Amino acid sequence: MFVTIEGPEGSGKSSVTNEVTKLLEKEGYEVVLTREPGGTPIAEQIRNVILDKENTKMDPMTEALLYAASRRQHLVEKVWPLSKAGKIIISDRFLDSSLAYQGGARGLGIDKILALNQYATDGFYPELTLLFDIDPRIGLARIAANKGREVNRLDLEKIDFHDSVRQTFLDLAKRFPDRFVILDASKPFDEVVKDAYAAIKEKLKECK
Amino acid sequence: MFVTIEGPEGSGKSSVTNEVTKLLEKEGYEVVLTREPGGTPIAEQIRNVILDKENTKMDPMTEALLYAASRRQHLVEKVWPLSKAGKIIISDRFLDSSLAYQGGARGLGIDKILALNQYATDGFYPELTLLFDIDPRIGLARIAANKGREVNRLDLEKIDFHDSVRQTFLDLAKRFPDRFVILDASKPFDEVVKDAYAAIKEKLKECK
Repeated sequence: MFVTIEGPEGSGKSSVTNEVTKLLEKEGYEVVLTREPGGTPIAEQIRNVILDKENTKMDPMTEALLYAASRRQHLVEKVWPLSKAGKIIISDRFLDSSLAYQGGARGLGIDKILALNQYATDGFYPELTLLFDIDPRIGLARIAANKGREVNRLDLEKIDFHDSVRQTFLDLAKRFPDRFVILDASKPFDEVVKDAYAAIKEKLKECK
Repeated sequence: MFVTIEGPEGSGKSSVTNEVTKLLEKEGYEVVLTREPGGTPIAEQIRNVILDKENTKMDPMTEALLYAASRRQHLVEKVWPLSKAGKIIISDRFLDSSLAYQGGARGLGIDKILALNQYATDGFYPELTLLFDIDPRIGLARIAANKGREVNRLDLEKIDFHDSVRQTFLDLAKRFPDRFVILDASKPFDEVVKDAYAAIKEKLKECK
């Protein structure tokens, strides 16, 4: 089963996912955590180009093509082989991030970015997408408070940009209701863990 | 005017182009030489990922997407602004290299790579493409003899691959006869310079 985790930085998605993974592993599931952009050495090299704070002149379509390249390599080298081997793969970000950031917030258009990503994914979709929904003001405040975390090129965008990302994620959840589950990421950590865990267990039942 | 230079490594395309540039500059033309992948700082970072000899696990479609990303950035930051400013821009490699290497030799299909590149180019084509045609055995022997030049990931492909690249370039010249001029790159250096120079002058006349 392929699960993707979407939402803004500071939504707690990584910490929650780590906790949920522990719970699933206790029950005997084999879980592999991965992330986008990145997840393999080549894809991590592409990630470094995308997130480099110096790259302020990057064209939005260049950005979209780089995400698609990173996605392709991640699928071919990691997600597809593990998926065939029967593991649960949980990816911190995937296709919907491209749709929300480049398609929505950068204004390239959802359908255009969806069509471009066909080249990367061959039409492969996750079975489940957990959307960590939160007001970006709260997410950005959390990032600012977390001194250990480096701020990247996308964190530095204006608040309108982050609002537009959030709205596009919510629109995508409506467009793909079969795979999207919206989590209220403003709730206390333990409750978000409970909600995320419940959503994955529910989907595992369906997929049996 | 946008001129692209295509052909295998070792075909002499860079040295010939440098010489032709000098001739054009003597006549008062403003010429800008550039190259793909690369040509701008961001595009050069992408180039490093593509050509890194360690990246043996790179999927062909990842490669195609990275070339498209590099192309986009190169067009937006360099080729389009210079083109508007009335310069002659000569690019060592462009779209047709993607069509020949990923579309033809790697077997992804010319039409698929052409469609993918619409996202990068918005349908922008060069006015003139000079194809430096040569038996890849001669080209590779020249590279081997040139100790100063580093061998990259694509040079290391088998001879069948390079034969297929050559054939695809020739097929592309038939498909796009209005912009392609085939040069016999096995001829002596001075003659190839003369042929390349004549082809550019001819196109300049047409474009006036």
